[in-house]
Amino acid sequence: MALYAATVVKLIEEFEKLPGIGHKSAQRIAFHLLEQPEEKVKAFAEAMVKARAGLKYCEVCCNMSDKDVCDICGNNARDRSIICVVEDPRDVAAMERAREFRGLYHVLHGAISPMSGTGPDDIKLKELVKRMDGEVSEVIVATNPTVEGETTAMYISKLLKPLGVKVTRIAHGIPVGGDLEYADEITLAKALQGRREI
Amino acid sequence: MALYAATVVKLIEEFEKLPGIGHKSAQRIAFHLLEQPEEKVKAFAEAMVKARAGLKYCEVCCNMSDKDVCDICGNNARDRSIICVVEDPRDVAAMERAREFRGLYHVLHGAISPMSGTGPDDIKLKELVKRMDGEVSEVIVATNPTVEGETTAMYISKLLKPLGVKVTRIAHGIPVGGDLEYADEITLAKALQGRREI
Repeated sequence: MALYAATVVKLIEEFEKLPGIGHKSAQRIAFHLLEQPEEKVKAFAEAMVKARAGLKYCEVCCNMSDKDVCDICGNNARDRSIICVVEDPRDVAAMERAREFRGLYHVLHGAISPMSGTGPDDIKLKELVKRMDGEVSEVIVATNPTVEGETTAMYISKLLKPLGVKVTRIAHGIPVGGDLEYADEITLAKALQGRREI
Repeated sequence: MALYAATVVKLIEEFEKLPGIGHKSAQRIAFHLLEQPEEKVKAFAEAMVKARAGLKYCEVCCNMSDKDVCDICGNNARDRSIICVVEDPRDVAAMERAREFRGLYHVLHGAISPMSGTGPDDIKLKELVKRMDGEVSEVIVATNPTVEGETTAMYISKLLKPLGVKVTRIAHGIPVGGDLEYADEITLAKALQGRREI
């Protein structure tokens, strides 16, 4: 005998598929939703379908957008000579919050990972190469400091340097406000290697 | 300038409303969904609307169900002389997982809480009294071991004892201040075995 109606079981299962949500949380969320007025649940469902249906990728930088060319690529105030390469759209948002970078982005939608079978052709590298039209003088590789991110950074460097583009990598070190004592060995090593004269 | 399309912002906001989901998690989940095929997102949205639309409450025990009388109340193998009173439908599921109780349930949909303005008339107490038809010999009060749950238990005891029904309370094998929903099966079973008349 099922503990819940089949439709409720199905709903719990759908929530369990989401990242970071286990069985208990899925149950809690499902029951929370079932306690909401029907219109609110419908509005939520609609928001989901609408966001997915309206989803486009910017023709220039491959970032998620609801337009053919995203707001950043379409903004003439931004520096078109410098491109920051990131793994996914959330990284663009994180960079924008830092208010330090005024150039354009390029979203790879992944990183090279032989372990999970993601090769250079599975991410938006061809689209990046196409953007090297002479106007671009520097490409900052801001992929994650993981094996996959580093591999991707090396690959991009080898790909773009012959085209006469300066390829740089964001610095890795101790986070500001962080404690040296709690930094891991690799971060500390990177911080030492990246030391600069003051 | 918005970092994301308006539809994506709306979707993130909807996820943020769910219990236990903060802004970062909501972002992560929203982007995860947007990466899924459109049919999958539609299936999720549909599961949500369907579960809510098909939602009924059992005419007997007030538990969530998709039928007029739920599977437990409709099951003739269950002991109809004993009713376990719980605060909400998840508690029924938790009790059922303990496999200790073979009677029927009654779901209050809340607990008496003067602090938040929930009085005896705001929970399914009238429906519980109506079930005292002579066939019921014992009512086990399994509300949460919180101030509200204890208040409700005392209230039920005073309400039903004059009707000649034995009212018992599950033992505090469950940590006080804890939540019935998160108790493990053995603790729940112990709590049932250790019940005492109140």
